Amino acid sequence: MNRCAVLLAAGNGTRMKSAGPKVLGEVLFKPMICWVVDNCREAGIEDLCAVVGQGAEAVCAVLPQGCQTVYQAQRKGTGHAVLCAKDYLERHRGQDVLIACGDAPFVAPEVIARALEAHRREQAAATVITALLEDPSGYGRIVRSKEGALEAIVEEKDASPAIRQIREVNSGAYWFQADALLESLEQLRCANSQGEYYLTDTVAILRREGRKVQACLAGDQYTVMGANDRRGLQRLNEIARRRVLDRLLDEGVDIPFEDGVIVGPEVQVGRDTRLLPGTVLRGRTTVGEGCVIGPRAQVEESQIGDRCQVRDTYLLSSVLEEGVEIGPYCRVRPGSRIGKGVKIGNFVEVKNSQLGEGTKVAHLTYVGDSDVGSRVNFGCGTVTVNYDGFHKHRTTIGDDVFVGCNANLVAPVTIGDGSYIAAGSTVTVDTPADALLIARSRETIKEGRAAQMRKKAGC
Amino acid sequence: MNRCAVLLAAGNGTRMKSAGPKVLGEVLFKPMICWVVDNCREAGIEDLCAVVGQGAEAVCAVLPQGCQTVYQAQRKGTGHAVLCAKDYLERHRGQDVLIACGDAPFVAPEVIARALEAHRREQAAATVITALLEDPSGYGRIVRSKEGALEAIVEEKDASPAIRQIREVNSGAYWFQADALLESLEQLRCANSQGEYYLTDTVAILRREGRKVQACLAGDQYTVMGANDRRGLQRLNEIARRRVLDRLLDEGVDIPFEDGVIVGPEVQVGRDTRLLPGTVLRGRTTVGEGCVIGPRAQVEESQIGDRCQVRDTYLLSSVLEEGVEIGPYCRVRPGSRIGKGVKIGNFVEVKNSQLGEGTKVAHLTYVGDSDVGSRVNFGCGTVTVNYDGFHKHRTTIGDDVFVGCNANLVAPVTIGDGSYIAAGSTVTVDTPADALLIARSRETIKEGRAAQMRKKAGC
Amino acid sequence: MNRCAVLLAAGNGTRMKSAGPKVLGEVLFKPMICWVVDNCREAGIEDLCAVVGQGAEAVCAVLPQGCQTVYQAQRKGTGHAVLCAKDYLERHRGQDVLIACGDAPFVAPEVIARALEAHRREQAAATVITALLEDPSGYGRIVRSKEGALEAIVEEKDASPAIRQIREVNSGAYWFQADALLESLEQLRCANSQGEYYLTDTVAILRREGRKVQACLAGDQYTVMGANDRRGLQRLNEIARRRVLDRLLDEGVDIPFEDGVIVGPEVQVGRDTRLLPGTVLRGRTTVGEGCVIGPRAQVEESQIGDRCQVRDTYLLSSVLEEGVEIGPYCRVRPGSRIGKGVKIGNFVEVKNSQLGEGTKVAHLTYVGDSDVGSRVNFGCGTVTVNYDGFHKHRTTIGDDVFVGCNANLVAPVTIGDGSYIAAGSTVTVDTPADALLIARSRETIKEGRAAQMRKKAGC
Repeated sequence: MNRCAVLLAAGNGTRMKSAGPKVLGEVLFKPMICWVVDNCREAGIEDLCAVVGQGAEAVCAVLPQGCQTVYQAQRKGTGHAVLCAKDYLERHRGQDVLIACGDAPFVAPEVIARALEAHRREQAAATVITALLEDPSGYGRIVRSKEGALEAIVEEKDASPAIRQIREVNSGAYWFQADALLESLEQLRCANSQGEYYLTDTVAILRREGRKVQACLAGDQYTVMGANDRRGLQRLNEIARRRVLDRLLDEGVDIPFEDGVIVGPEVQVGRDTRLLPGTVLRGRTTVGEGCVIGPRAQVEESQIGDRCQVRDTYLLSSVLEEGVEIGPYCRVRPGSRIGKGVKIGNFVEVKNSQLGEGTKVAHLTYVGDSDVGSRVNFGCGTVTVNYDGFHKHRTTIGDDVFVGCNANLVAPVTIGDGSYIAAGSTVTVDTPADALLIARSRETIKEGRAAQMRKKAGC
Repeated sequence: MNRCAVLLAAGNGTRMKSAGPKVLGEVLFKPMICWVVDNCREAGIEDLCAVVGQGAEAVCAVLPQGCQTVYQAQRKGTGHAVLCAKDYLERHRGQDVLIACGDAPFVAPEVIARALEAHRREQAAATVITALLEDPSGYGRIVRSKEGALEAIVEEKDASPAIRQIREVNSGAYWFQADALLESLEQLRCANSQGEYYLTDTVAILRREGRKVQACLAGDQYTVMGANDRRGLQRLNEIARRRVLDRLLDEGVDIPFEDGVIVGPEVQVGRDTRLLPGTVLRGRTTVGEGCVIGPRAQVEESQIGDRCQVRDTYLLSSVLEEGVEIGPYCRVRPGSRIGKGVKIGNFVEVKNSQLGEGTKVAHLTYVGDSDVGSRVNFGCGTVTVNYDGFHKHRTTIGDDVFVGCNANLVAPVTIGDGSYIAAGSTVTVDTPADALLIARSRETIKEGRAAQMRKKAGC
Repeated sequence: MNRCAVLLAAGNGTRMKSAGPKVLGEVLFKPMICWVVDNCREAGIEDLCAVVGQGAEAVCAVLPQGCQTVYQAQRKGTGHAVLCAKDYLERHRGQDVLIACGDAPFVAPEVIARALEAHRREQAAATVITALLEDPSGYGRIVRSKEGALEAIVEEKDASPAIRQIREVNSGAYWFQADALLESLEQLRCANSQGEYYLTDTVAILRREGRKVQACLAGDQYTVMGANDRRGLQRLNEIARRRVLDRLLDEGVDIPFEDGVIVGPEVQVGRDTRLLPGTVLRGRTTVGEGCVIGPRAQVEESQIGDRCQVRDTYLLSSVLEEGVEIGPYCRVRPGSRIGKGVKIGNFVEVKNSQLGEGTKVAHLTYVGDSDVGSRVNFGCGTVTVNYDGFHKHRTTIGDDVFVGCNANLVAPVTIGDGSYIAAGSTVTVDTPADALLIARSRETIKEGRAAQMRKKAGC
């Protein structure tokens, strides 16, 4: 507690060649600003303020409820951005405030927390989070005294050859005592060629005033990573992807080939489950043990039980109980719950429906807005007609029902347990249990007529 | 003007282990010889002559109209190949002629043009286009005098250690004055062990005769690239792919992961459009801004408007207006025009049809040879019956029509504005506006019959 | 003959984080133990004994018939594992026995055979198969005398700096005279800290007894490769994949991009056939010349003739004759034979059926348990109703039949040559040749009714 954060999210997408704001660039399908927000929250910071600029509305749309925002009308440097949040800081006097970049998604919660610990332990006015890099080029270097105290942050362009050798760099994230930050912000000047206010100058200001400022080497190589252009954004995506796949391999997931396998950071996958090429798992998805997922499963916000098979299928916001087999070429849309051992074959769409244990939907079928019992068999080409052009209605199908091929079940309609719908029937009335329903025309055979037709057509 | 080109396209595919000619090996889905033709044309050379050999017919089939061809019956070296075009050269006396290899797809138009400029400025009889390579091994080296004049082209196998150090190499493309070329060709001899006539010997011949010959370092690393075997062809594909993706990233296209993303050289993609894994864009395809294309969109020769979504879909020679959503698992075949805001869902095929603004085709439907109005709703399993076994016919559907599930519209047939086709109907007659058409049998319910059937079947 | 093998397959999957046995880890879709079995058989070893432990039942399930198994209740080292097969060895006295690890899939048949040759030529009691590695770290080093005789196998952890320099390593595979092996096994002791019996100690024992033991440098870098964790298993997969793709490129297969292209070791592909991204070919699949396979073809245990096209399709245990076109989005299930020039379009499932030459199944159709003649045309939405809820039945369709859209053919049923089934008909009776069968209701048009419905619905 007693902590808050100001997130710098006003950058424009000019170098991204984007019409939108930079912080909405996505890493593993999540906007960068959302990574930063999630990192803060995991580090125990609930009270957040985002400084927004270009595309403010779009940025605000992805921020969590309760996140405050201030608008930075002009882009005049990081110091100016933080100044825009002056009122927010005033309201948080007495607290510690994290300043973080909205386009640095990999500042881990542990890094933030470790730095806060050091910040408080040393009662520092400012604590710069730093990292040690193999190749520090491009980053601001951390100059320390012999005793290890922070002396200065020197930008690459101002750095002497000796300073360029330094491998400890500024991550761009800082903890400040809110009061000290406010005090130093007032003294910020834009006495540089760009006419910008630099946040890093506050460190020198505080130091000059005899306040304790320190560098805390809490970060790692990932901490400093941001994206300036599309190539950089791609790099972040690949790094994030690699890290999740490494975690899964360590946890006993079988990924024989990684081609096109992309898994979001919040996904959990059980051991001995195999992920095949082209599979994308997103959101808060969980997959059980011993499953085969893919090739090309697209799963989002879903729960998949043990021993399921999901091939070439889109699965969104649904639940598969154990031993379900789906695909290839299926789509399960939100709000579906697929019972134990259900088999869903090719060219089947299920939407907002429940399917009971052991039910089979083998091919070319649409099950929408339906409550289906156990051991039901859907023939090929079956349609639950859930829309009459005006409203949507539900279909109710009991246990052990047999629905013949190319049948239409016109909702609202109820098919009783154990009943049998003949192929080709359009059903508009309820069917009692154990009944046979048939609705079709008798065949007429016109002998020789096909031959005549061919002759007439000249074929 | 006053320029022409002879393209050497007679090589066989022996090392490719191909039954076909080498120059038909494809790079980014375009035969190598077509890259060379396109490069020439972009450099302002319209008058072309291809020397063909193995698989001559297949090569001629991909050459543009107006491209002349001569047949090289035997493969006796590059000099011999050019000799086969002697009549063509005679007809082009007084012009400058480019000699280019049909399997070197990356000789850029700018390179060709820059070399021609130098060729003409210096009034050279021959200008060898050269490139500077990091690793020149395998290529003919360019030996220059102290003053920089071309002294010789020395093949790797004939090169002394000193000459092997030279990093400037022969690209295999040359500009000649047609007259000088003809003159020198007559003096070519095959006095080597292979019994071949080398085109490079013409340079020495012309030089001996006191004609101006020069090397023009106009090329880059790509200029010299060719393919000798399948692995080399794969390498060209990867290079070409990389170059297009780099261009797109620079232009503000979002490509979070490149797995399976392949884009042809002529494709244009708007900024903020996202290309997802497995997506292939070919031919003269254009994509607007802010689209999501993929995963696994296969798009060829199509125009896609702004803010469209195309997932797991084949789209060929069609037009999507803005805000169209297609897929997953759809196929849009040639000659289709999909109106603004149309939604096409899973397992839908559209062929040679127009769909008006806001129309919805959600699932398991075939719309072929049809003119469909705006705000039409197709139920699931609907079929436009465009083929009667003899001829194809068109279906015409007005605005605001509702087509019930599993309905057949037997073409030729017209469905009036605002009419309503009941589910399961087969429609063979025109329907007036605002009418309800229904064609189905009343249901018969046989109570207990399903139970009897099960008993009889012993289930 | 006169040879046999003991395969060590008792390892658990602890480091794989697997509930199953380690040797069932799959490389190119084949369990590692099956690679080892196949390698042995190709090297002429038919008489095999596997030592199984964790997940014994699952391992036995993948072993070929005739392969003997013994159960190792406790894991006490490689020597102990071989001891478990003592009875097997006793029954094979007088023979040569290969000892091989069940998780080393790349010990090639040639390596095994070459080592046996050396083993017999030198009448050795034991022959250690070795390999020379660029980086030998982690492997047991082969110490030889000046004369080249095997002096010792020294494990990494026991190796002096000098010995660590040795690049010849133990592959973990050995040939023994069965009698010598039995004799030395009796003298094995577990005098080490782990309390394990090491098979390598038998070499020292035999040497001490004056028996001829030797190291045979028959292996290559692949010989020593095994997998300890999921990352290692992934590496084996990538290596195996690379080797097959290299073979295909050498054989003239066109693979412009390798993204997601995975081909099993037993697959044969003809020259000039193109494999496109996402294509997986498995089992004993053969593909003819000049085909286009992919993108995303999933083919298993199937034969594909020349000049076929297979796009976005699952093809399992079926035969395509020449010139067949399938896809995109199709599924051909086991037992199907697709005749010459057949076209199968989008959203079609074929199961256990024969399709005659030139037949067309363009879209949204299910052909199951059917015998279909030549030049048949299936309309869109057609279903062969092969299941009545109790039993499966076959559908027989003659030549030149036209099946109208959304028709149901309720099996068992026969459709005569040249007959014509009207769209929307459900067919339960046989149709004679050249007849027209029609079964549908006449249309009723209710003028203005749709307008009324809208009004009532308030739309």
